[in-house]
Amino acid sequence: MPKARVYVTLKKSVFDPQGRTIHEALRSMGYEGVADVRQGKFFEVDLESMPAERARETVDEIARRVLANPVIESYRVEVEP
Amino acid sequence: MPKARVYVTLKKSVFDPQGRTIHEALRSMGYEGVADVRQGKFFEVDLESMPAERARETVDEIARRVLANPVIESYRVEVEP
Repeated sequence: MPKARVYVTLKKSVFDPQGRTIHEALRSMGYEGVADVRQGKFFEVDLESMPAERARETVDEIARRVLANPVIESYRVEVEP
Repeated sequence: MPKARVYVTLKKSVFDPQGRTIHEALRSMGYEGVADVRQGKFFEVDLESMPAERARETVDEIARRVLANPVIESYRVEVEP
Protein backbone atom coordinates (compact mmCIF):
# COMPACT_ATOMS: atom_id res chain seq x y z
CA MET A 1 0.00 0.00 0.00
CA PRO A 2 1.44 3.40 -0.91
CA LYS A 3 2.17 5.82 1.90
CA ALA A 4 2.32 9.55 1.51
CA ARG A 5 3.54 12.35 3.70
CA VAL A 6 2.34 15.91 3.46
CA TYR A 7 4.39 18.67 5.08
CA VAL A 8 2.57 21.95 5.66
CA THR A 9 4.45 25.09 6.65
CA LEU A 10 3.48 28.70 7.06
CA LYS A 11 4.81 30.81 4.19
CA LYS A 12 7.98 32.72 5.02
CA SER A 13 6.09 36.02 5.02
CA VAL A 14 3.59 34.82 7.65
CA PHE A 15 4.36 35.38 11.31
CA ASP A 16 4.63 32.13 13.30
CA PRO A 17 3.75 32.86 16.94
CA GLN A 18 4.19 29.23 18.04
CA GLY A 19 7.67 29.08 16.58
CA ARG A 20 8.53 32.43 18.16
CA THR A 21 7.33 31.26 21.58
CA ILE A 22 9.38 28.06 21.35
CA HIS A 23 12.42 30.07 20.26
CA GLU A 24 12.08 32.39 23.24
CA ALA A 25 11.62 29.46 25.61
CA LEU A 26 14.75 27.80 24.26
CA ARG A 27 16.80 30.98 24.69
CA SER A 28 15.56 31.37 28.26
CA MET A 29 16.66 27.76 28.88
CA GLY A 30 20.16 28.60 27.71
CA TYR A 31 20.11 27.31 24.14
CA GLU A 32 21.95 30.32 22.73
CA GLY A 33 22.85 28.52 19.51
CA VAL A 34 19.30 28.54 18.17
CA ALA A 35 18.76 31.25 15.55
CA ASP A 36 15.12 30.57 14.62
CA VAL A 37 12.31 28.06 15.06
CA ARG A 38 9.30 27.58 12.82
CA GLN A 39 6.53 25.09 13.46
CA GLY A 40 4.66 23.13 10.83
CA LYS A 41 2.33 20.17 10.54
CA PHE A 42 2.69 16.93 8.77
CA PHE A 43 0.31 14.18 7.82
CA GLU A 44 0.95 10.50 7.16
CA VAL A 45 -1.62 9.32 4.64
CA ASP A 46 -1.93 5.55 4.06
CA LEU A 47 -3.55 4.72 0.74
CA GLU A 48 -5.26 1.65 -0.61
CA SER A 49 -3.32 -0.10 -3.35
CA MET A 50 -3.14 2.21 -6.38
CA PRO A 51 -0.57 3.21 -9.01
CA ALA A 52 2.11 5.63 -7.76
CA GLU A 53 1.03 8.35 -10.18
CA ARG A 54 -2.57 8.21 -9.04
CA ALA A 55 -1.44 8.19 -5.39
CA ARG A 56 0.54 11.38 -5.97
CA GLU A 57 -2.36 13.11 -7.73
CA THR A 58 -4.81 12.09 -5.01
CA VAL A 59 -2.63 13.26 -2.14
CA ASP A 60 -1.69 16.47 -3.90
CA GLU A 61 -5.38 17.28 -4.30
CA ILE A 62 -6.09 16.39 -0.66
CA ALA A 63 -3.22 18.61 0.49
CA ARG A 64 -4.47 21.54 -1.58
CA ARG A 65 -8.14 21.14 -0.70
CA VAL A 66 -8.07 19.95 2.89
CA LEU A 67 -4.74 19.90 4.68
CA ALA A 68 -3.22 23.25 3.76
CA ASN A 69 -4.57 26.76 3.52
CA PRO A 70 -2.89 27.97 0.33
CA VAL A 71 -3.36 31.61 1.30
CA ILE A 72 -0.89 31.40 4.18
CA GLU A 73 0.64 27.94 3.95
CA SER A 74 2.76 26.01 1.50
CA TYR A 75 2.95 22.23 1.31
CA ARG A 76 5.15 19.47 0.02
CA VAL A 77 4.04 15.92 -0.82
CA GLU A 78 6.23 12.79 -0.68
CA VAL A 79 4.89 9.45 -1.89
CA GLU A 80 6.59 6.14 -1.26
CA PRO A 81 5.29 3.10 -3.19
CA MET B 1 24.36 27.78 9.39
CA PRO B 2 23.14 24.25 10.12
CA LYS B 3 19.43 23.60 9.83
CA ALA B 4 17.61 20.85 11.65
CA ARG B 5 14.17 19.38 11.34
CA VAL B 6 12.36 17.59 14.11
CA TYR B 7 9.39 15.40 13.28
CA VAL B 8 7.09 14.55 16.19
CA THR B 9 4.40 11.88 15.87
CA LEU B 10 2.03 10.26 18.29
CA LYS B 11 3.13 6.72 19.11
CA LYS B 12 1.25 4.04 17.19
CA SER B 13 -0.57 2.95 20.33
CA VAL B 14 -1.96 6.44 20.99
CA PHE B 15 -5.31 7.41 19.50
CA ASP B 16 -5.08 10.35 17.09
CA PRO B 17 -8.45 12.15 17.04
CA GLN B 18 -7.29 14.83 14.58
CA GLY B 19 -6.12 12.22 12.11
CA ARG B 20 -9.35 10.29 12.54
CA THR B 21 -11.45 13.40 11.91
CA ILE B 22 -9.49 14.24 8.75
CA HIS B 23 -9.84 10.64 7.56
CA GLU B 24 -13.61 10.73 8.04
CA ALA B 25 -13.86 14.10 6.28
CA LEU B 26 -11.89 12.74 3.32
CA ARG B 27 -14.13 9.68 3.05
CA SER B 28 -17.24 11.86 3.15
CA MET B 29 -15.73 13.92 0.32
CA GLY B 30 -15.37 10.78 -1.78
CA TYR B 31 -11.70 9.92 -1.25
CA GLU B 32 -12.32 6.19 -0.87
CA GLY B 33 -8.69 5.31 -1.50
CA VAL B 34 -7.48 6.70 1.83
CA ALA B 35 -6.87 3.95 4.41
CA ASP B 36 -5.62 6.01 7.33
CA VAL B 37 -4.45 9.50 8.28
CA ARG B 38 -2.23 10.46 11.19
CA GLN B 39 -1.23 13.99 12.07
CA GLY B 40 2.12 15.08 13.45
CA LYS B 41 4.12 18.24 14.02
CA PHE B 42 7.41 19.32 12.69
CA PHE B 43 9.86 22.02 13.59
CA GLU B 44 12.48 23.76 11.49
CA VAL B 45 15.32 24.78 13.79
CA ASP B 46 17.96 27.16 12.39
CA LEU B 47 21.18 27.03 14.34
CA GLU B 48 24.11 29.40 14.68
CA SER B 49 27.28 28.10 13.05
CA MET B 50 28.44 25.00 14.95
CA PRO B 51 29.92 21.59 14.14
CA ALA B 52 27.43 19.05 12.74
CA GLU B 53 27.87 16.72 15.68
CA ARG B 54 27.16 19.42 18.22
CA ALA B 55 24.15 20.55 16.18
CA ARG B 56 22.72 17.05 16.28
CA GLU B 57 23.27 16.70 20.04
CA THR B 58 21.72 20.11 20.72
CA VAL B 59 18.63 19.49 18.62
CA ASP B 60 18.20 15.96 19.93
CA GLU B 61 18.19 17.36 23.47
CA ILE B 62 15.74 20.13 22.51
CA ALA B 63 13.43 17.57 20.88
CA ARG B 64 13.48 15.35 23.96
CA ARG B 65 13.11 18.14 26.53
CA VAL B 66 10.84 20.64 24.77
CA LEU B 67 9.32 19.63 21.47
CA ALA B 68 8.08 16.10 22.13
CA ASN B 69 6.31 14.45 25.02
CA PRO B 70 8.17 11.14 25.22
CA VAL B 71 5.29 9.47 27.07
CA ILE B 72 2.98 9.60 24.06
CA GLU B 73 5.12 10.89 21.20
CA SER B 74 8.16 9.75 19.28
CA TYR B 75 10.47 12.04 17.34
CA ARG B 76 13.04 11.99 14.61
CA VAL B 77 15.81 14.55 14.04
CA GLU B 78 17.40 15.41 10.69
CA VAL B 79 20.35 17.81 10.52
CA GLU B 80 21.68 19.32 7.33
CA PRO B 81 25.01 21.14 7.49
